[in-house]
Amino acid sequence: MTRESAGEKVALIGSGNWGTVISKIIARNVTKHNEFQQEVKMWVFEETINGRKLTELINEKHENVKYLPGITIPENVKAVPDLLEVVRDATVLVICIPHQFVHNVCDQLKGKIDPKVKAISLIKGVETDDKGIRPISHVISESLQISVCSLSGANIANEIADENFSETTIGFNVREEGELFKKLFETKYFRVGIINDVVGVELCGALKNVIAIGAGIVDGLKLGENTKAAIIRMGFLEMKKFMRKFYGGIKEETFFESCGIADVIATCYGGRNRKVAESFVTSGKPFDQLEKELLQGQKLQGTLTVKEINRILSREGLNDEFKLFTTIYRIAFEGLPPKTIIKDII
Amino acid sequence: MTRESAGEKVALIGSGNWGTVISKIIARNVTKHNEFQQEVKMWVFEETINGRKLTELINEKHENVKYLPGITIPENVKAVPDLLEVVRDATVLVICIPHQFVHNVCDQLKGKIDPKVKAISLIKGVETDDKGIRPISHVISESLQISVCSLSGANIANEIADENFSETTIGFNVREEGELFKKLFETKYFRVGIINDVVGVELCGALKNVIAIGAGIVDGLKLGENTKAAIIRMGFLEMKKFMRKFYGGIKEETFFESCGIADVIATCYGGRNRKVAESFVTSGKPFDQLEKELLQGQKLQGTLTVKEINRILSREGLNDEFKLFTTIYRIAFEGLPPKTIIKDII
Repeated sequence: MTRESAGEKVALIGSGNWGTVISKIIARNVTKHNEFQQEVKMWVFEETINGRKLTELINEKHENVKYLPGITIPENVKAVPDLLEVVRDATVLVICIPHQFVHNVCDQLKGKIDPKVKAISLIKGVETDDKGIRPISHVISESLQISVCSLSGANIANEIADENFSETTIGFNVREEGELFKKLFETKYFRVGIINDVVGVELCGALKNVIAIGAGIVDGLKLGENTKAAIIRMGFLEMKKFMRKFYGGIKEETFFESCGIADVIATCYGGRNRKVAESFVTSGKPFDQLEKELLQGQKLQGTLTVKEINRILSREGLNDEFKLFTTIYRIAFEGLPPKTIIKDII
Repeated sequence: MTRESAGEKVALIGSGNWGTVISKIIARNVTKHNEFQQEVKMWVFEETINGRKLTELINEKHENVKYLPGITIPENVKAVPDLLEVVRDATVLVICIPHQFVHNVCDQLKGKIDPKVKAISLIKGVETDDKGIRPISHVISESLQISVCSLSGANIANEIADENFSETTIGFNVREEGELFKKLFETKYFRVGIINDVVGVELCGALKNVIAIGAGIVDGLKLGENTKAAIIRMGFLEMKKFMRKFYGGIKEETFFESCGIADVIATCYGGRNRKVAESFVTSGKPFDQLEKELLQGQKLQGTLTVKEINRILSREGLNDEFKLFTTIYRIAFEGLPPKTIIKDII
């Protein structure tokens, strides 16, 4: 076997802002470690940009002109519009799509993935069902019948594209998979911690966006650093309580990895959910309109998560126990005045 | 007994920026609760401002024109330049002075305070001795032979002066004292949590300033939110580890009160230690010069704490176990280039 045909074959499903940054990282790493084949196929949801196909632009310019302009992607990344072509013969799937697209993608892949394939989800979101929380890693795992790790951390995408230092966390069920993915992702500026807690890592990644919407509301109201820190503290405690209540086996240590407290902080100061929530207060426009106006085609995960969380809290009669999460929902979707973010939680 | 002579008599030792904000809060609260007499004497280290004495200006204008300009102080606050007059017959001492002045003040008060007097320390700092950490509450308690609580939280002073919402934490040894001080301090915009952990509360208040200097260095280097969140996370973990290692009995919950994670966050985004550390990087000037240039007479607590912490780490041979704290010391005082804040901790 030649180097090209031996080893793990990595497919990247997703090519948004974060997915494109990740393509840069993993495409370099596959050339450094013998475990991997050197080409990374990246699934691109085809769009037309000034009359040209986005896949063609990416493969020609080695740049995602729409979602990560100005950053060069390695030449061993191949943008492909056909999902099934991307995953063909892949042994490793890196899944980085908006939460909203998960079911559609899984439906297309169902029955077509070898059960030995190892996957990792970078998706920020959560679903609820009759029994409680349904983590996205489980949605994928059950649909495709494969093992799924998770990756989340204090990872504002553009800063990593610029190669500023950050940390991240990979949650695994099987240590060897955690270690394989650490090799695939770690660089000198992107430091990977691994922990045996797939669901803890991914739920932190989803729930932190609820806190960030609270932080953005405080910013919009110009209440200052003390108030914002108080909201972040309360949100962090509600996040922990919620995860513990609705999902067994989450590790305390997970909250102190990059995916926990660090991501809460980074998202509450630099993330897009914070930004849109601030504008929600200052402009008075609804979230769906601001998503279109401010995010240039990126999706807002936080408002979906706010709704999912509130659905489960309402059904279980727990709104009084999760005052901050409940108040954020009511401000965002039921017309409660933003300034009640303080009044209604104390 | 009339209302005026019955009940706890509160003396406030200190009249800097934070002390003056506190004078406003406690002077209102003593008029609301029957437990207290209505006058609050406030010790002012006498200074001359444009030819007038600061105490006279405060008592005439009901404003601390030097340390909290623009904020009206209640008329039942009486500024007094004589420390012994301030504490005469006091049953409650609120101590809010820079760490640097503690020994001098205690030496003046020694033997003159009734052992039944209840005190609370708002001081941010820590001392070390041959046995390890010497909390300021213990310095006061041993010198004056009285019981000492502590107060600390995400409390940037000027924001509380403006009556924006914040939380704080009071650490107590005796629950009744914690509850008395909660009455003295709590207002609708200043929410007090109490916890049976005097030293935990005050050490968080001291050590968070070390993290803030690290955060300010990251800001000065313009490394972005991910890097800053990573430094805050690592600093939070080193703070916990340090406190646990050098002081028994600190509660895990203390780190999740306002004095813990919330104060770390507020200080790393809005505090003076962060600000001066950022300027240390961008201007290249030493900390003592920047303290004079940037703080209008306020003292920088963080650099003193950085030195105290490093003294104990060096003596115990623990610099390798506390890489971030050690690197911050070396950048601040040994000429290590600021950019090594990342390189030397990973």
